[in-house]
Amino acid sequence: MKKVAVIMGSDSDLPVVAKAVSELKAYGVPYECRIMSAHRTPSTACDFATDAREQGFGAIICAAGMAAHLAGVIAGHTTLPVIGIPMRSAALDGMDALLSTVMMPPGVPVATVGIDGAKNAALLAIQILAVSDEELAAKLTEAKKKMAKTVAEKDRALQEKLEDL
Amino acid sequence: MKKVAVIMGSDSDLPVVAKAVSELKAYGVPYECRIMSAHRTPSTACDFATDAREQGFGAIICAAGMAAHLAGVIAGHTTLPVIGIPMRSAALDGMDALLSTVMMPPGVPVATVGIDGAKNAALLAIQILAVSDEELAAKLTEAKKKMAKTVAEKDRALQEKLEDL
Amino acid sequence: MKKVAVIMGSDSDLPVVAKAVSELKAYGVPYECRIMSAHRTPSTACDFATDAREQGFGAIICAAGMAAHLAGVIAGHTTLPVIGIPMRSAALDGMDALLSTVMMPPGVPVATVGIDGAKNAALLAIQILAVSDEELAAKLTEAKKKMAKTVAEKDRALQEKLEDL
Amino acid sequence: MKKVAVIMGSDSDLPVVAKAVSELKAYGVPYECRIMSAHRTPSTACDFATDAREQGFGAIICAAGMAAHLAGVIAGHTTLPVIGIPMRSAALDGMDALLSTVMMPPGVPVATVGIDGAKNAALLAIQILAVSDEELAAKLTEAKKKMAKTVAEKDRALQEKLEDL
Amino acid sequence: MKKVAVIMGSDSDLPVVAKAVSELKAYGVPYECRIMSAHRTPSTACDFATDAREQGFGAIICAAGMAAHLAGVIAGHTTLPVIGIPMRSAALDGMDALLSTVMMPPGVPVATVGIDGAKNAALLAIQILAVSDEELAAKLTEAKKKMAKTVAEKDRALQEKLEDL
Amino acid sequence: MKKVAVIMGSDSDLPVVAKAVSELKAYGVPYECRIMSAHRTPSTACDFATDAREQGFGAIICAAGMAAHLAGVIAGHTTLPVIGIPMRSAALDGMDALLSTVMMPPGVPVATVGIDGAKNAALLAIQILAVSDEELAAKLTEAKKKMAKTVAEKDRALQEKLEDL
Amino acid sequence: MKKVAVIMGSDSDLPVVAKAVSELKAYGVPYECRIMSAHRTPSTACDFATDAREQGFGAIICAAGMAAHLAGVIAGHTTLPVIGIPMRSAALDGMDALLSTVMMPPGVPVATVGIDGAKNAALLAIQILAVSDEELAAKLTEAKKKMAKTVAEKDRALQEKLEDL
Amino acid sequence: MKKVAVIMGSDSDLPVVAKAVSELKAYGVPYECRIMSAHRTPSTACDFATDAREQGFGAIICAAGMAAHLAGVIAGHTTLPVIGIPMRSAALDGMDALLSTVMMPPGVPVATVGIDGAKNAALLAIQILAVSDEELAAKLTEAKKKMAKTVAEKDRALQEKLEDL
Repeated sequence: MKKVAVIMGSDSDLPVVAKAVSELKAYGVPYECRIMSAHRTPSTACDFATDAREQGFGAIICAAGMAAHLAGVIAGHTTLPVIGIPMRSAALDGMDALLSTVMMPPGVPVATVGIDGAKNAALLAIQILAVSDEELAAKLTEAKKKMAKTVAEKDRALQEKLEDL
Repeated sequence: MKKVAVIMGSDSDLPVVAKAVSELKAYGVPYECRIMSAHRTPSTACDFATDAREQGFGAIICAAGMAAHLAGVIAGHTTLPVIGIPMRSAALDGMDALLSTVMMPPGVPVATVGIDGAKNAALLAIQILAVSDEELAAKLTEAKKKMAKTVAEKDRALQEKLEDL
Repeated sequence: MKKVAVIMGSDSDLPVVAKAVSELKAYGVPYECRIMSAHRTPSTACDFATDAREQGFGAIICAAGMAAHLAGVIAGHTTLPVIGIPMRSAALDGMDALLSTVMMPPGVPVATVGIDGAKNAALLAIQILAVSDEELAAKLTEAKKKMAKTVAEKDRALQEKLEDL
Repeated sequence: MKKVAVIMGSDSDLPVVAKAVSELKAYGVPYECRIMSAHRTPSTACDFATDAREQGFGAIICAAGMAAHLAGVIAGHTTLPVIGIPMRSAALDGMDALLSTVMMPPGVPVATVGIDGAKNAALLAIQILAVSDEELAAKLTEAKKKMAKTVAEKDRALQEKLEDL
Repeated sequence: MKKVAVIMGSDSDLPVVAKAVSELKAYGVPYECRIMSAHRTPSTACDFATDAREQGFGAIICAAGMAAHLAGVIAGHTTLPVIGIPMRSAALDGMDALLSTVMMPPGVPVATVGIDGAKNAALLAIQILAVSDEELAAKLTEAKKKMAKTVAEKDRALQEKLEDL
Repeated sequence: MKKVAVIMGSDSDLPVVAKAVSELKAYGVPYECRIMSAHRTPSTACDFATDAREQGFGAIICAAGMAAHLAGVIAGHTTLPVIGIPMRSAALDGMDALLSTVMMPPGVPVATVGIDGAKNAALLAIQILAVSDEELAAKLTEAKKKMAKTVAEKDRALQEKLEDL
Repeated sequence: MKKVAVIMGSDSDLPVVAKAVSELKAYGVPYECRIMSAHRTPSTACDFATDAREQGFGAIICAAGMAAHLAGVIAGHTTLPVIGIPMRSAALDGMDALLSTVMMPPGVPVATVGIDGAKNAALLAIQILAVSDEELAAKLTEAKKKMAKTVAEKDRALQEKLEDL
Repeated sequence: MKKVAVIMGSDSDLPVVAKAVSELKAYGVPYECRIMSAHRTPSTACDFATDAREQGFGAIICAAGMAAHLAGVIAGHTTLPVIGIPMRSAALDGMDALLSTVMMPPGVPVATVGIDGAKNAALLAIQILAVSDEELAAKLTEAKKKMAKTVAEKDRALQEKLEDL
């Protein structure tokens, strides 16, 4: 199976990014998790992106905050799907990272998920691998059913809570 | 090869969405282009999404404006990667569509591109198919080189223009 | 009397949504309170909306956050008035939910109240039922008077506080 | 049948508000259309709102731009459902009117539709009357089907256009 | 001397509004402080505004949050200068109140100060009274000098702090 | 009678600012209209502000766009009421000028009107002078009545238009 | 004298960027003007930045729109001052480019000017060179005086216009 | 070596501004740190700016919040590079200060860094001095390498953390 790369711009992003890692683990998808910065270690990031397809990666998840350039820079060096997680930071509530990640110029897309949306980034990567992997696709379908079941159970539990309200 | 679905919420979206179609054609990727609305023809949309994988689709591009629910609703009915194009409309400059498309809850990702980013949506779909298609990947690499060459040529042309400035 | 449905996208919405339930109870309006998700349990939500009029509902309140599609999706499946409560979540202060709820395309209105405006959503539902229910209308008039009286009392109490300021 | 009031803050709002009037006409719903201003003719507006229920109105649509207070002021004087249309004006793209209309304090709801959403405001008023009017409800259902049919036809027409693209 | 009215929409605004009251007290300007709501006690508010000039008021300060209509409604009923304080509330960081207060239509101005700017609202009222009151003007000049002196002292104190940094 | 100063940061502001001048003329209020820039002719601006009270001014209107510092800088040099008009410019729709004008720190208020709100700025200045000028106050009351009458006439005219709609 | 580099992400930026070039020419500052893209020709951009100091540059101006990464990426490869011009594009009025340019993480500053602020970017570059160049500093002082004179002349011209108003 | 001035509008800005001071100290760059206000001590600020070049300053850093006029006012009185730090305050998350600082009119640039970006402001000042100071430039290059090394070390440390995740 292709691997998924999970790159974060700073180690302070780990508490959020960890949800992406957990999701990949839960699906048994091989991954590599790295700290690289578009501004502080640009050549490491560019080299990683350039070689990613050959190294067996199928998708690259990039998490960065503020003027979040990481996903865009990585996307400039690879033709693999690049998934951007805009990270919320002290000011502006993540809107800076969202716009810096999603508003890419024609020719260099970044598949952007919601602010701090690490779990969804991982799921999107898994969906991408699952396009050509029936087994993985089946796991996704299973998870979708389970998710629906959980909501249904919470709905039932709510009825009891309501009586006590 | 898997097909790419290109769905728009309204036929007024066609002028922008056409750029996605052109891109898919240029890469020789089979596609189906449809008008379906999350609010006006919800069951058509849901049925389409539910059957999409079996029908041979590998990715679904959804373009919608305002309270853009199309991509999210489609994503609720499939485990295929769903790509959302937030469409700019009369008020709010596309910010409404961007937030309605990208801020999905955990469990149901939408791979969002920039406002009116139809070309990038198509490229992202092609990148997704290319994860397991060496030939398509080669075409993407070729296009990336050509894109760089075009910028380099424009850079050279600029030097002449500057003399006349 | 027609019933009011109160639907929330996630059980984490309950603390806010509970204010809608309390208000309906206070007016003696029958209600049903449910957890359903536009993305996680779409068919449950669609079926509920489709049958709501026949099931004796007069209005449907939908509370959802982030890319809040619940009210819009419900509105796509019913001709009953649908009231949307945009829920505030971690990022963006509820602006995402507000725009996702209110900016509906022509043909499918959602009656949107303020961010986290659960009490107002319930009052709006009661006002809707009261259009053809004199008794309920009288209760609303009574409450309006009481509300004015409370403000007037607070105004009087303020005068005493001011002396101590 | 109850009447619907359509009030606008300025005659410059008429081109947009006319869509609400057309919609009410199309459904055969009696209406009264007025210009009243929360700031320029406040007592006319307040008196109108105070008497509206007795005058046979079932809903009041208010269209206003900028610091749009009309709907809120009307809602302060009636227990009828008040529907607010935030109007887009020269600056700020309608965001000022949207927030001024929708963010009402607890106790005084305004059912807000999208920016310039006059057609939806009328539809919402009709839905409100239709809660206790089977015939009107049937017309809404009919319109919903027709709307779906139109989308389906546009979808078919698109297939031909695509061949020429 | 003319009096200054300080009106707030809700008693929860008092902690902020108290700064306006303190400032008026410090300048020896007579004032009346009231709770009145544009939506909950509209007729009290309108009557107050209508009579304010005759009652000896020279300026009216209005503090309100969310869809802050209080200043605008008061301004609709008087030709006295009306000063609006947009109050910050749970969502949207005061932007809703700011736009609802400042974006008034031609003919009905509201002199808006910054979000939660109670002290400045009082100072503005005092400046207004001081236009025709030399003694009050002299106090303002005095305060301006004192303010400059305080900054200069803090600047000096900083130099010592810096040595310890 | 005290004079009103109308200052604009650039001559490109004149088309909007002219509405303030017209309003002052209509009320027979003496005025001086100037171009001064907080950044380009700061000392002229500061000197003007410093002497304004002695020169017989009662209020200073300042119109500026973008990072609109004019009103704030003027307010730093006078204890007269300073009225700020945030001007809309090419980008950001006037939001930059609005925030730069209204969000003044404690101690230095600017009475801010809406974006491009030149007429309201003049009315506010007139209201300020009218606090101690019965004749001017009477004119304002007259104008308020006339404004209401105009709306009422437009309301009547609308009824005829509606028949033709 | 050190040279100033003026880099734009796309040739469509030239009409705005030309104002920077004109300003540099007017001051007789040597410059090089280039098209390079952070996403399309990343290695050209990185190489340029890496060698810029050695090549005799004293400042690098970068103009880019949307998710404007150019200035940030250049700043990652040089210790020269990098000046960012956020370019306004079709959607979002330049806010995306502004946030993508200015919100840089600690360690990698970008000196950001206003949206489309090409003239100011050039002036800032000239100011930077002038820190150690008395002659250039004298020219800046001269220009500042001339700018003040122009405003003063416009102020005088306005007085005549006003008589005709 | 030229000195760097660090000016803040209020002593409450010190905790953030201290990071600029530390950075300057770390590089051995002489500095002066002051509290001056564009609104409260305008003449001190203007005099300081006017004399700054002669006093041996090479760059002026200005930190201010809300309607942040300090950097713009300073820039109006000097031809030295002025660096603006928009400070985050209670409301609006720093967006007010950002726009008030960055959106300067043509002719008077302010080199704006990110919200609360004190460290970057200092680095930018150092980069400016380093244009003509090889030794300082070498220190910046050294710091850039060290920064990259730190990221690389954190990347390695992450690999161990991941095993425990």
